[in-house]
Amino acid sequence: MAEQQPDTSARPVVALVPEPRGLDALAAVEGVTPLLYDVHAEPPEGAENAEVIVVPSRPVDRVLALIDRLPALRLVQTLSAGTDSWTGLPAHLTLSSAAGAHGAAVAEWAAATLLAVARGLPAYAQEQAAARWQPHPTDTLWDKRVLVIGAGDLGTRLRACLEPFGARVTLMARRPRPGVVTMSDLPALLPDQDVVALMLPLTPETRHLADKDFLAAMKDGAILLNAARGPIVDTEALLAETRTGRLRAILDVTDPEPLPPDHALWHAPGVLITPHVAGNVPQADDRAWQVAAAQIARYARGEQPANTVS
Amino acid sequence: MAEQQPDTSARPVVALVPEPRGLDALAAVEGVTPLLYDVHAEPPEGAENAEVIVVPSRPVDRVLALIDRLPALRLVQTLSAGTDSWTGLPAHLTLSSAAGAHGAAVAEWAAATLLAVARGLPAYAQEQAAARWQPHPTDTLWDKRVLVIGAGDLGTRLRACLEPFGARVTLMARRPRPGVVTMSDLPALLPDQDVVALMLPLTPETRHLADKDFLAAMKDGAILLNAARGPIVDTEALLAETRTGRLRAILDVTDPEPLPPDHALWHAPGVLITPHVAGNVPQADDRAWQVAAAQIARYARGEQPANTVS
Repeated sequence: MAEQQPDTSARPVVALVPEPRGLDALAAVEGVTPLLYDVHAEPPEGAENAEVIVVPSRPVDRVLALIDRLPALRLVQTLSAGTDSWTGLPAHLTLSSAAGAHGAAVAEWAAATLLAVARGLPAYAQEQAAARWQPHPTDTLWDKRVLVIGAGDLGTRLRACLEPFGARVTLMARRPRPGVVTMSDLPALLPDQDVVALMLPLTPETRHLADKDFLAAMKDGAILLNAARGPIVDTEALLAETRTGRLRAILDVTDPEPLPPDHALWHAPGVLITPHVAGNVPQADDRAWQVAAAQIARYARGEQPANTVS
Repeated sequence: MAEQQPDTSARPVVALVPEPRGLDALAAVEGVTPLLYDVHAEPPEGAENAEVIVVPSRPVDRVLALIDRLPALRLVQTLSAGTDSWTGLPAHLTLSSAAGAHGAAVAEWAAATLLAVARGLPAYAQEQAAARWQPHPTDTLWDKRVLVIGAGDLGTRLRACLEPFGARVTLMARRPRPGVVTMSDLPALLPDQDVVALMLPLTPETRHLADKDFLAAMKDGAILLNAARGPIVDTEALLAETRTGRLRAILDVTDPEPLPPDHALWHAPGVLITPHVAGNVPQADDRAWQVAAAQIARYARGEQPANTVS
């Protein structure tokens, strides 16, 4: 019996990874040879053959400089759902995101903060610190109208998380599809919403989507929730509406970000801020690497990665 | 054609109500005449014919004194799900609860506090107050084991609220039924749970259910959540386990209650306390009156109220 020959037609795909766990994550992917790099050092030996690079979220400028030195590069894979940092990539490169990895965590953060605000938990934390037993009625998510702009992994998961609480959730997306309204419905819907949750990518079209007019159309006391990217909201316009107490806000992302210590948004009434941690749960990195590995496996098989950013 | 005669066999049932909204709630119930009373005053004229009394949650002693003066009384209807305050009722009276009215609000509170603790919202509120942008990873409910003791309206609703977050919820009740484990499984299950949520009635059997041995069987870092009644937990035993930081707790009810300002539980590490407000949402009173009206309607039709406490 002839000994089985290795398939020499399939060259291994060299994939650069920015952290040791990437070596583990890609070890089991057929036809892929992961290679560790340090964005602050020279490219490792063999990097000239790299067709794939998995990129960290920062520093973007250093990663872009490295990419310029990789002649064989074809695919840039992020570990984040958002890819707005990578608009400066050369046109011959394919950009693929880790969409799907962070939806559960971000939806959990959004539901957690909405519930905390509705049920007055921040105020009760202060009462507890003062050892005061002072019951008062609070609000509830029951029957609240929640408009989720962005009907991807994050938005659909948020709907699933909020509906058992009796919230009336509407999903909105750019492209029409079943069960989802489109952006053209925004003017009609905005004035009725108790909560407007931003869960869409930052693009030139969505920058300052929540501007002065958008916010003015929201009803008194409504909550703007941003779990997407800071610049989707016009910060000055939001400050104006929250300073007077007319609107409330829940923000995991800000513009500028990080928010400087002297920024007025920190202390605006009815504004809850967390420092871009909606996706920061213990499983987040593993999930992101799983999604990245799946994308790279598709590339190595000669297929288009499913998360390609158009 | 003969004029239709009123049915004189059905005498109107006089139902005493402790607040004006009770007059509205019972106005539409056929065969019932609501009559307003003030527990701090003399019984109103006609009270001697009252077969039903809707009781406020306090003061219990004054309500019991009034009940002693109502010779026609048959049914005592609460506006709360718990009826543990009313164990001193004369044996000839039927006691009926407002079970079903508060489940959604209490489950919402339990989910809200669990999510807030998991996602580190109290710590982030302090960071915000100090205008500090300091991201750190937090926990998540994803994949957490949650044991809910009490599989009534509250427990089943809590399960529905937590499952979309990826929590693995087990319901436990006294009586075996499909999808619900029984108290005999407690010793086997306790050591594996990340959260143990108490959502069962206070009875002589459940008093101090969460005692020193129960708490000792819980795993390090686990959370005891009490949304039922304070005395189901042995406060001293819980203090001992939380002072060392071995267990955490989320409490809407305490023993004693209200918790005195100098009580050590207020400042025990990892303990979140709210002042018995899990059910305090704007809809709570309306829902309680709806359930009470349905019970009284059944009584007026000669049926057994569905919420009779055995």
